[in-house]
Amino acid sequence: MKAFVMEELEEVGFAEKDVPEPGPTDAIVRPTKGLVCTSDVHTVHGAIGERENLTLGHEAVGVVDAVGSAVTDFEPGDRVAVGAITPDWGSAAAQNGHPSQSGGALGGWKFANEKDGVFAEYFHVNEADANIAHIPQGVSDEEAAYVADMMSTGFMAAENADIPMGGTVAVFALGPVGLMAVKGAALQGAGRIIGVEAVPERIELARRYGADDVVNFEEEDPVEVITALTDGEGVDAAIEALGANAAFESCIAVTKPGGTISNVGYHGQGEYVNIPRSEWGVGMAEKDIVTGLCPGGRLRLQRLLRLLDEGRVDPTPMTTHEFDFAAVDEAFELMESKEDGIIKPLVDFT
Amino acid sequence: MKAFVMEELEEVGFAEKDVPEPGPTDAIVRPTKGLVCTSDVHTVHGAIGERENLTLGHEAVGVVDAVGSAVTDFEPGDRVAVGAITPDWGSAAAQNGHPSQSGGALGGWKFANEKDGVFAEYFHVNEADANIAHIPQGVSDEEAAYVADMMSTGFMAAENADIPMGGTVAVFALGPVGLMAVKGAALQGAGRIIGVEAVPERIELARRYGADDVVNFEEEDPVEVITALTDGEGVDAAIEALGANAAFESCIAVTKPGGTISNVGYHGQGEYVNIPRSEWGVGMAEKDIVTGLCPGGRLRLQRLLRLLDEGRVDPTPMTTHEFDFAAVDEAFELMESKEDGIIKPLVDFT
Amino acid sequence: MKAFVMEELEEVGFAEKDVPEPGPTDAIVRPTKGLVCTSDVHTVHGAIGERENLTLGHEAVGVVDAVGSAVTDFEPGDRVAVGAITPDWGSAAAQNGHPSQSGGALGGWKFANEKDGVFAEYFHVNEADANIAHIPQGVSDEEAAYVADMMSTGFMAAENADIPMGGTVAVFALGPVGLMAVKGAALQGAGRIIGVEAVPERIELARRYGADDVVNFEEEDPVEVITALTDGEGVDAAIEALGANAAFESCIAVTKPGGTISNVGYHGQGEYVNIPRSEWGVGMAEKDIVTGLCPGGRLRLQRLLRLLDEGRVDPTPMTTHEFDFAAVDEAFELMESKEDGIIKPLVDFT
Amino acid sequence: MKAFVMEELEEVGFAEKDVPEPGPTDAIVRPTKGLVCTSDVHTVHGAIGERENLTLGHEAVGVVDAVGSAVTDFEPGDRVAVGAITPDWGSAAAQNGHPSQSGGALGGWKFANEKDGVFAEYFHVNEADANIAHIPQGVSDEEAAYVADMMSTGFMAAENADIPMGGTVAVFALGPVGLMAVKGAALQGAGRIIGVEAVPERIELARRYGADDVVNFEEEDPVEVITALTDGEGVDAAIEALGANAAFESCIAVTKPGGTISNVGYHGQGEYVNIPRSEWGVGMAEKDIVTGLCPGGRLRLQRLLRLLDEGRVDPTPMTTHEFDFAAVDEAFELMESKEDGIIKPLVDFT
Repeated sequence: MKAFVMEELEEVGFAEKDVPEPGPTDAIVRPTKGLVCTSDVHTVHGAIGERENLTLGHEAVGVVDAVGSAVTDFEPGDRVAVGAITPDWGSAAAQNGHPSQSGGALGGWKFANEKDGVFAEYFHVNEADANIAHIPQGVSDEEAAYVADMMSTGFMAAENADIPMGGTVAVFALGPVGLMAVKGAALQGAGRIIGVEAVPERIELARRYGADDVVNFEEEDPVEVITALTDGEGVDAAIEALGANAAFESCIAVTKPGGTISNVGYHGQGEYVNIPRSEWGVGMAEKDIVTGLCPGGRLRLQRLLRLLDEGRVDPTPMTTHEFDFAAVDEAFELMESKEDGIIKPLVDFT
Repeated sequence: MKAFVMEELEEVGFAEKDVPEPGPTDAIVRPTKGLVCTSDVHTVHGAIGERENLTLGHEAVGVVDAVGSAVTDFEPGDRVAVGAITPDWGSAAAQNGHPSQSGGALGGWKFANEKDGVFAEYFHVNEADANIAHIPQGVSDEEAAYVADMMSTGFMAAENADIPMGGTVAVFALGPVGLMAVKGAALQGAGRIIGVEAVPERIELARRYGADDVVNFEEEDPVEVITALTDGEGVDAAIEALGANAAFESCIAVTKPGGTISNVGYHGQGEYVNIPRSEWGVGMAEKDIVTGLCPGGRLRLQRLLRLLDEGRVDPTPMTTHEFDFAAVDEAFELMESKEDGIIKPLVDFT
Repeated sequence: MKAFVMEELEEVGFAEKDVPEPGPTDAIVRPTKGLVCTSDVHTVHGAIGERENLTLGHEAVGVVDAVGSAVTDFEPGDRVAVGAITPDWGSAAAQNGHPSQSGGALGGWKFANEKDGVFAEYFHVNEADANIAHIPQGVSDEEAAYVADMMSTGFMAAENADIPMGGTVAVFALGPVGLMAVKGAALQGAGRIIGVEAVPERIELARRYGADDVVNFEEEDPVEVITALTDGEGVDAAIEALGANAAFESCIAVTKPGGTISNVGYHGQGEYVNIPRSEWGVGMAEKDIVTGLCPGGRLRLQRLLRLLDEGRVDPTPMTTHEFDFAAVDEAFELMESKEDGIIKPLVDFT
Repeated sequence: MKAFVMEELEEVGFAEKDVPEPGPTDAIVRPTKGLVCTSDVHTVHGAIGERENLTLGHEAVGVVDAVGSAVTDFEPGDRVAVGAITPDWGSAAAQNGHPSQSGGALGGWKFANEKDGVFAEYFHVNEADANIAHIPQGVSDEEAAYVADMMSTGFMAAENADIPMGGTVAVFALGPVGLMAVKGAALQGAGRIIGVEAVPERIELARRYGADDVVNFEEEDPVEVITALTDGEGVDAAIEALGANAAFESCIAVTKPGGTISNVGYHGQGEYVNIPRSEWGVGMAEKDIVTGLCPGGRLRLQRLLRLLDEGRVDPTPMTTHEFDFAAVDEAFELMESKEDGIIKPLVDFT
């Protein structure tokens, strides 16, 4: 079968691979739609170390092609969503309430990390009964592709932020995860949502998803503006959706004592993530810092699919471009250059 | 001044009273708009025992008329919202995270219970800096009147229900508190909201506030229908907004193991509230039962007012009738008879 | 192999059965020590319905005899503790944070319920890597047998009670689960622990596990005494470890507004579990009712074993009697008659 | 009256001041016993900025000398404990569940910060009914003095750490707060408590309070040792009780994915508190960082006093030295030099 791989650091291309076989609890899925993620680009640049001939991609929906002997709830032909994170549910971390960390830090993240990803004619899913979900009839493949990572991660950012009903929230960086964090904050009852972004297309979309104000950090100082917008009090919660010290430090600064900083940004550089000491109240201002990795699992997928099915969220305006699988390399280039107002490129495998 | 009072059990009428004086931390408020609550009717019928010449009403907004010497944040002329519940913030219960129980069970409920209520030309508020809030310019008096009780109580029902993002919720009884519980569930990220009600006007309004399905309990068995709608699993959370054993028992029955029953109904009759033993999994199915009394306090009011100010909720469709203060007795009669599709009668004091 | 079975309702005896075989993720364990539980007696009387030739028992430790092909962390000869509850970790309920409810209400309870129990020469464990734990060298088989149910359930009662540091707790009924709830409350930082019991041996042991006061309900009214002991305020948390309406109602009555009722008693009789309406503050006093079924899982077992290994708890004073496996029927009779000051009978399989 | 003051930066001495007068809700207390805190020393060195003629001290118990007209629960002659932190209970932060932050970051900390402290013949307490507590007869003044800060702060460190029953905890630095964090961890059900310290007297006392292992950081690398002691997994929770980047970074490193870092150390230096990026799992390993300032309030004091009254903790072994008030300057010098095995110096005002 054809697979789109990271041949080595900085090199991507198509390769021919064997169709994977399912173990007793696994499934093999034939993707129909997928989405390219910035983290795929990071991977190619070495964010998770060296890899050779590794199939890329972790966001896809498809049709079940084969299942292992112990799989009970799915059969070939089923239309399914698959989580970007596919935990080992019996692990100590999962029993501890942190399935995304099963088997070690970030251990639930298997696609295009520990094993081949989803950008191939077929891909393998571990613990199928626990890690995939049927797509309701009223939900399209494109919509469903967003539950794998973008909705699950962005909504988690808002859930972790512990937003009080009617509270104030700042979201730093409005890429697709930040946009879903904005929508997630609205779905958690936020009273006022303030985004921080400079790209016009993203600002516009953020307003559509519920942002009441957006601070253009190229024109204004977000800390000053957010402090002023909250009458000097600071926000109840700040969401870091970038993965950079500048944004992280601003999150600490704009959060009120007793508030929460929810980090979803992937911090890919530097020795330290910096907490500004004074703004953090010398470690006594009860500004808690919470982090998370995209929640996976069938139940999570089902709940996100339900939000789609009942029309409570529409992620498809984030699809700014579409490519056939054969042209997925062009999607990668675009995600890298960030040109043409790109937010998410959809990949068609059919 | 003129006050609308419960003269004795079963008797209401207008009385002449002295204008109240503020203690050092208190405020005197001149109401502009108020709402009549079913619990006022219950009070007249003896739900909280005998009372004599007690001014009724606990939902009102108005203008500050006078403040005590220690009040720092409000002054005469300020347009303010006032909580139905006005806790003693230094009490043990408040320090314990349960301000509505300050001074004993339900002790934060003072208006038309421990002291005169708000249906008078002036009314008294304890701990003014902590129990009233300025109304933002963009919010009308009518809108603001809903934060006192309906929004605070209804939203609390949803907050207490611990609804997972995309989870399923059933709301039993869609009076104004149930309607706000529906809206609250939507604002907490519910994936599917199922109401139970028989009055057509309420069913229609529930759909507007986010109900995906409404079961007419006069035509169908809610337990059967809700069980079927959730593929036999039951809901993540059930909200009891009636205060009757039939609804309470159904809530236990339709909630999945590991789910939550959130009670906001006032249970006014009988020796026991009944938990059906088998449906409750013989006390081991992890179906927790959570209760609450309307949260008060300036911070709560500010947050609810923010939701109004940003247009995230519009409670005014619940205003089905309007009366001048001089005709508030007619509003009471209507709340009792439940005729004419009444949901909430607005009282104009100006 | 020899097994001690419930032949039918009200009939127990020894039977000859085949040694069980492990599926790919399972283990077969040869028990060394076991404990008889009151719920085994209830089962024989029909508490969970009719059963035929069902091996009894759910509390045992032993030695691994065989493992399935997919088991990675255990091998024959390993000395292991086994949870009374052995969840399906990939299930929706487990993903929802309620593994004991996997597959339906109380679905994690498989031994002597859905399948043969542990009172046999060999028994079968599902998902072995997730449901058994190695016993540390310093922990005896007898000690370890208590983690299966008594410590896990009793401590859960205290954990669910949400006891504030230095708070007050009442524990109704001081059988082995109630005794471990007392110890659990001490391990959760309770400031004052009040037990309710009439059996002298249990009262004495409760004091050893941390009870500061014990009310003899045959001599005094627990509600009156506990109310007086708490200066009229009531306790922060009440634990129901009996499973009877009298105790449950008292729990509601003695808990302060804003407190928690933690139910671990198995309610085996009657149509309803009764909440006294007035004492419950008409459903608005924020007296939450929380329930649970014994937590299982390797992580839980490891943590409880650690408490034994570090000497933080000693459950063995609860072992009042010992029997060889061949005499387990006598242990059953004693658990039924409750004679001779019995608390827990230890069964020796070696 | 005589007061021990910070005359200016780096200068302390005795001064003559007027006896304070109570406002309507205040009390004036005549101290009997007090404790000197390292943070008093920090204050003199400028940690909270310049101050002039400010009375030092925030840990004391005493006798009520006078109360304001609105105080209802205390009267002259009452023996009382007083919190180091005395929140404004009606404030937005207190209503938000963060009373120690009332009026701004760390705003509940008034003694020897916003106003005169307790090292004087008389001192002033705001909101007396909410911020002081009667000392039970069985509790000595010396014992009670420890609830003001040491027990409240140290136990909070353990409460914030969200320790699972039987979980593993590391406590970095075993000064009096760290020692009480060790005891707090034991009172929260920790299974294994690992301290990090180099001073022999503190190591010995830590074992008495429940530490199972203590790593001498001058002889071994705590990260290596703790990782080894936990079989490579890391601890469930790490407590930072020092306020230094070295300890903070180690806390991040030794905590398992999904664990909690509980900071109580006062970070007094440097621009940043450093989170080591890789050890923090690039911001996705669910290692949450929680902070807090000593909880105050009458309820908290009562609960801590109850733990003393029931004999669940004995803080007095931490009293290594005693001084008359007239010699409190010598106590200060000792706290600075850290000589003579000092842990806490007790000050006698009688």
